[in-house]
Parts: sequence; C-alpha cells; structure tokens
Amino acid sequence: MSSTSAAPGRGEKPPMRDALVAAAFRLFLERGYEQTTVDDIVALAGVGRRSFFRYFPSKEDVVFPDHERCLADMEAFLAASDDGHEPVRRVCDAARLVLGLYAENPTFSVQRYRLTKRVPGLRAYELSVVWRYERALAEYLRARFADRREGTLRADVIAAAVVAAHNNALRSWLRSDGKGDAGAEVDRALGYVLSTYAGTPGPAPAAAEADGDVVVVVSRRDAPLWRVVQELEGVLGRG
Amino acid sequence: MSSTSAAPGRGEKPPMRDALVAAAFRLFLERGYEQTTVDDIVALAGVGRRSFFRYFPSKEDVVFPDHERCLADMEAFLAASDDGHEPVRRVCDAARLVLGLYAENPTFSVQRYRLTKRVPGLRAYELSVVWRYERALAEYLRARFADRREGTLRADVIAAAVVAAHNNALRSWLRSDGKGDAGAEVDRALGYVLSTYAGTPGPAPAAAEADGDVVVVVSRRDAPLWRVVQELEGVLGRG
Repeated sequence: MSSTSAAPGRGEKPPMRDALVAAAFRLFLERGYEQTTVDDIVALAGVGRRSFFRYFPSKEDVVFPDHERCLADMEAFLAASDDGHEPVRRVCDAARLVLGLYAENPTFSVQRYRLTKRVPGLRAYELSVVWRYERALAEYLRARFADRREGTLRADVIAAAVVAAHNNALRSWLRSDGKGDAGAEVDRALGYVLSTYAGTPGPAPAAAEADGDVVVVVSRRDAPLWRVVQELEGVLGRG
Repeated sequence: MSSTSAAPGRGEKPPMRDALVAAAFRLFLERGYEQTTVDDIVALAGVGRRSFFRYFPSKEDVVFPDHERCLADMEAFLAASDDGHEPVRRVCDAARLVLGLYAENPTFSVQRYRLTKRVPGLRAYELSVVWRYERALAEYLRARFADRREGTLRADVIAAAVVAAHNNALRSWLRSDGKGDAGAEVDRALGYVLSTYAGTPGPAPAAAEADGDVVVVVSRRDAPLWRVVQELEGVLGRG
C-alpha cells in the first residue's frame, strides 16, 4: 500500500485503469472537477476515449473506482454467512469492508472526501453508493429475520443504524486527514449499534430475555423493586 | 384535499406553480419522464419557460414540488422545541411531517413513487432529499445530546433509524397504492425506534442509569445477582 499514490491500492487491477484514476485525480486537484473533461484525462493518461469508457461509464465513476468491487465483496461476504453468525454482528463485519477500502489508501480517500464535499453531483453519486451498501445489509437482515415479527422493519432500521455509525466514524477520520486509527474509531461506533441490537430478538420493551452472555431488563422506574428482581431471577434461572 | 388531482394540495401556493406541476405529471404519465421536455410542460400549462424556472430550478424539481417547504416546516418545528421535549420523540414527530406531505394527496404520491422507481435520476434526487431530512433530524439531536458521551454518534444513528423506520412504513403504504392507514403504519414503525431509544441516556452497556420513567440495566449473565440488585437499587434511589 502506498499512501502517497493517488491511485487506490488493493488487489490486482488493470494498469490502464489505475493510470486513468491517477490522471483524473491529478487534474481534479489541479484544475477542479468541473473544469476537467474526459478528453483531458485520457490525454494525460495517454490512452483513447474508448479505453476510459471501457472502465468507467462516466466521469463521476472514476471518482469512486472501487465501490463496485467493494459492493460485490460485501455481497459475497454476506452470501457466505451461515445461521451460526449473529446477524447484526455479521452486517457490522460487512460494513468494515467499506472501511478497509478507505483505510488502505488514506491519501486518496482524503482527497476524494474533499472533492466530494465541493461538488454537489459527486455528493449525490456518493449517496447512491451508500444507499446500495445499506440495501445489501438490509436484504441480508431481512432474510435472517424472515420468521421474526416486524422482520423487514427491524432489518431496515438496523441496516441504517450500522451505516450511520460506520459513516460517522469514517467521516471523523477523513476530517482528521486520515490520521488516527480508522479501525478503532469504526469499532467503537459499531460497538454502540451492537450493544443496542446484537442478539436481541425483538422490540419487546416490557420483557426480559436471556440471549448469549448478557441479560437485559427494561422496567418502568416506578415498578416495585420486588417485581423487577423476580423477573431478573426468572431470566437468570435462579428463582 | 382532492385525491384525484395530480397537484399536491396543502397550503396556499401560486396557481401557476400548481398548473405547472399538474401539466408535468400529466405528460410524465402519458409519455414518460425522459421523453417530456420543459418546453412540453410550459406549452401544456400555457406559460413561458421563464415562469417554469422561477418555480423550479430543473425538471427534476417539479417531481418533488413540496419538499423544500416540508424541510423548512421540519426545521421550524425542531427549532420551536424546548428542553421539555424528549429528543427522540421530538424527531419522530418531525418525521411525521413528511408523512403528512405524502398522505395529504395519495394519488399524487403513488404516481410519483412509481415514476421515481423507473427513473434512476429521480431516485438519486430522492436520496438527496431524504439525506437532507436526516441531517435536519441529526443536527437537532446533536444539539440536544451535546453534553452526552458519544453525542454526535448517537444523534446520527438515531436520526438514521427514525428515517429508515418512517420510510419502511411509507414505502409499504405507497406499494399498497396509498390504501390503508399511513399514519397508523408510520406510528407502528416509529414505535419500534422509540422503544429502542426514547429516554435512554446512552450506550453504557456495563452501567445502569435512570432517565425519565424507565431504567435499563445491562449485566453479564454470570454476574452475581446481588451485584445486579445493588446496582439497580442505587439507580432507583432505594438502596
């Protein structure tokens, strides 16, 4: 991984594709995104227009060259799940694949973040990318929650919570110019979502349930203490 | 409220603006969105191009004629809050303003839903609208949570959860062609988010805290029962 190259780093990719991304970002940073044409990019990269459009449907796509691959990785990761995977933990792990894409090349990621903030069209493109990640997570959870009450509602809400937590940490890291430990920040943010949702089978605020190694009791504050303790003893199997 | 007019109904709006929306939707439905030009719309409405662009920056904007107003309503509603409002309940109430916009004219809302599903550019536009609503909710929560641990993280996650729940119910209602009780569906969906987040002061899985009328105790399952009871008594002020 090179933190000084403008091209993203991971995996085996055609050199021409990398050259186009590097040329595009050099021009975007020098002249601005709107002032750079596809012709400018192919001229700097020393290739023809058709080569550009073989890799990228539009100028916007060259700004986010690896999201299609990351989305495919995420879908493959989720498809390789089995019933032994706690579903919320699994989608958190899937979300970390996106973090990995950003963290593998901090310089490129920070440059793109600044560019995207300045160009409304790129912001819209990014929102549609985020939406596709969120749908992939939600589809997985919907399947896992198919036999649960309000399964699609819970799947959609948890997928949105995971994406929001991930992006809160990712944006914080990008705003700090890619300094600091992105993985630790995202773990902390996803930990909040996990503490809320992981292993809890449903929206049953008046009940007490045991699942895994924690017990959650939710009680009205004015409930008699003996009732709360009784409930707790029942759940812990010590009553 | 008219459920047969193609123009949205609420509030006082210039008749020319309504006429442009009605003409646009008639053409979008007859010919398709891509095949309809602004010239076609102004010809049918009997006005000039400049009149169109006085009300709508682009052809996309005429598809969502009331979101700017609804966003302003939402911001005004949140700005009119005081510390007595439970924050999560307040953002759920703010989200219901969006539902109101859709429910006041089911025919128009269902037509637009179908159109948006078919046209990728409109889908992207809608995502940017949803993002702006979510940011308005998150900004309010960030301010309310300013003195809490992980306030911005929690604000972002809860705003995303509220929007996801709202949209899950809204889409379900739109898919049913606007039949059924949209308000009841959204209440049920937001109730799930409220039961998770309302009145809970923070992501403190090892601690117990009192806030409002509920107490949440989270404990390791193997914790000695006396320790859990001691914690509970301390929080309830009965120790």
